[in-house]
Amino acid sequence: MSTNRHPNAKIWHFPQPFVFETPYLGKPEVIPSLEVAYEDWGDPRNPAVLVCHALSGNTHCTDLEDNDDFKKGWWPAMVGPGRAIDTERYYVLCINMLGSCGGTSGPASLNPDTGKPYGLHFPIVTVGDMVRTQRMLLDALGVKKLHAVIGGSMGGFQSLVWPIKYPDFVERSIPVASSAYSNQFMIMTNRVQIDSIQLDRRYNNGDYHNHGEPLSGLSVAREIGFTTFISPIMMERKFTKYHQSQREPFADAQFHRQRFHEAEDYLRRVSEPFSKDFDANSMVYLLQTWNHFDLAIKFGSLAQAFEPVTGRTMLVCATGDNLFPPYLSEDVRKALEFNGRPVEMVKIEEDYGHDFFLIPEIIMEKLTPPIRKFLET
Amino acid sequence: MSTNRHPNAKIWHFPQPFVFETPYLGKPEVIPSLEVAYEDWGDPRNPAVLVCHALSGNTHCTDLEDNDDFKKGWWPAMVGPGRAIDTERYYVLCINMLGSCGGTSGPASLNPDTGKPYGLHFPIVTVGDMVRTQRMLLDALGVKKLHAVIGGSMGGFQSLVWPIKYPDFVERSIPVASSAYSNQFMIMTNRVQIDSIQLDRRYNNGDYHNHGEPLSGLSVAREIGFTTFISPIMMERKFTKYHQSQREPFADAQFHRQRFHEAEDYLRRVSEPFSKDFDANSMVYLLQTWNHFDLAIKFGSLAQAFEPVTGRTMLVCATGDNLFPPYLSEDVRKALEFNGRPVEMVKIEEDYGHDFFLIPEIIMEKLTPPIRKFLET
Repeated sequence: MSTNRHPNAKIWHFPQPFVFETPYLGKPEVIPSLEVAYEDWGDPRNPAVLVCHALSGNTHCTDLEDNDDFKKGWWPAMVGPGRAIDTERYYVLCINMLGSCGGTSGPASLNPDTGKPYGLHFPIVTVGDMVRTQRMLLDALGVKKLHAVIGGSMGGFQSLVWPIKYPDFVERSIPVASSAYSNQFMIMTNRVQIDSIQLDRRYNNGDYHNHGEPLSGLSVAREIGFTTFISPIMMERKFTKYHQSQREPFADAQFHRQRFHEAEDYLRRVSEPFSKDFDANSMVYLLQTWNHFDLAIKFGSLAQAFEPVTGRTMLVCATGDNLFPPYLSEDVRKALEFNGRPVEMVKIEEDYGHDFFLIPEIIMEKLTPPIRKFLET
Repeated sequence: MSTNRHPNAKIWHFPQPFVFETPYLGKPEVIPSLEVAYEDWGDPRNPAVLVCHALSGNTHCTDLEDNDDFKKGWWPAMVGPGRAIDTERYYVLCINMLGSCGGTSGPASLNPDTGKPYGLHFPIVTVGDMVRTQRMLLDALGVKKLHAVIGGSMGGFQSLVWPIKYPDFVERSIPVASSAYSNQFMIMTNRVQIDSIQLDRRYNNGDYHNHGEPLSGLSVAREIGFTTFISPIMMERKFTKYHQSQREPFADAQFHRQRFHEAEDYLRRVSEPFSKDFDANSMVYLLQTWNHFDLAIKFGSLAQAFEPVTGRTMLVCATGDNLFPPYLSEDVRKALEFNGRPVEMVKIEEDYGHDFFLIPEIIMEKLTPPIRKFLET
């Protein structure tokens, strides 16, 4: 079973049924019990900061035991001793999202009623469901209040929903490179990723657990994702052509006449390992969660959606983010301002593309100062 | 055998071997004979204008017999009586590109030596090879000179190569929404399209002719293409969410819990029929041709590439074209200016996205006046 569960992840088991937001054929959907995976850093008596991960992430946003902390975890330049989210000043938690495959319940989890993976019998997951499981865990751990919730991309969806759903619990929200709704480009590119997973004959309508997993389909899906994670400008800087011309024709290529550019190799190099560590059904579920995330539709308008918020919000976006362009953060800013809620927006000039918030140099130079200040005031 | 050959297409058979530009394992590659499909309109005694089609096009750019000429052919608003490319003033030809599947030789053609489709035994095709087959046809038809060559996207590649390869033959070149090289974004998104075709088990390493064709893989490839053909802004205008909510859950979906937005339906609606009318190997070949098109690499620099040009060039691009952004046309302009060659650039303010050059309203309002003037002077 593919999983990106980190060895450090702790699992909290909730023995009671968990009821999902979205009914199916008019009936509420339930799983008999719930597991929530998390990691935490720092002193639990310090103010708590919740870090929400993105589509493919897990609980392991940082690693205090590892010396090369730019390489270990998915956000070590942001979270750690002396970082913007300072583990010596804050009690930091990162929780694996519901529906994912990093230890929290999801389609790859075993259904205790059948002893088999849920597969497509797992209920539809919303961002609201994810946030509710996170609140359950924080309650179980005795966390009374969040000094801040922060997350990038899909983690930003959670950061936006937290203060709407639990306004008294959240003092600060920092959605990074995110949005209050999926736009049509996301819907299209996410749909094609789902289609490419289903194209793999091993996917077998989600029931692949007794034969091989659909690694090729998931790998192509991830390749499609990677074409949207960095900007075309960044791609021009990053890749050269014919870097492997000495290997033409590419020996192990299926198509013997193919010649490869560096960018093509890059796609495979990053996607193939990913496909071995992630559950294909989780990817399908999370892409659906993303595609159906729309606070304007859910609440009637964005203005109404953000009415409950009482804490402060800092929106972070970048000019070159072509997956979550700044207008999406602007929409949130306007909705909060309409309600008279305190909000600030940090639009950084940065053409790296959507993944800018994961890049150590950009984090240190451009994100750390405003985030540190926002957390301290 | 999937083909997009139009019934009106005429085929010219060249019985002699055709030698391709790209050797394979050091040996020149050859097919024993060549077929070139074309259509033509207007009086052959008029000045000749060659229209070059894009990735998925064919010979049928217009149809003078059809009254609703916005619907018949792929460029009827541009080509026809009284249009910018006026079939009453010009002798207009449109030739199916080498490697495609609209009547010209390509991987789906029968190899006369074996009686079977070439499949992956078809040689690698370059834009130079395409242009050479077009020149052979024009010579055979007795065309002595091109008043103009015009084409969008991959048709623009051909329009750029024509006056480099045959400067004395071409008076005007009009590359639309095009480039003198593939950029890294194209390389990545085209590669993923190839990978998705190969992911279909029916593809069978290109040897699918005795069983079913890889329609699903080709359909997903085309879906990926469609995410790049219109701009994210246009997608927001064009599509609504949950337009089919009355059909939830989507009855015939593989994944019974899926709910669809209009943009997702659109992808399938346009891609599935396409996959039935296009050869999967042709798509793989043409995407490779595209990915390896680079006049700067071929000639040492763009300045050197355009040195032979003697005719005039008009580059047409649009601000919202995210597949062929205007900087790509700027690069051509600079290279021609460096050589002191006459060049003008029409950059239209238009956020439709790459397919802008196919949209009748945009053609009539924004493209027709400059192109008509350029052709007349």
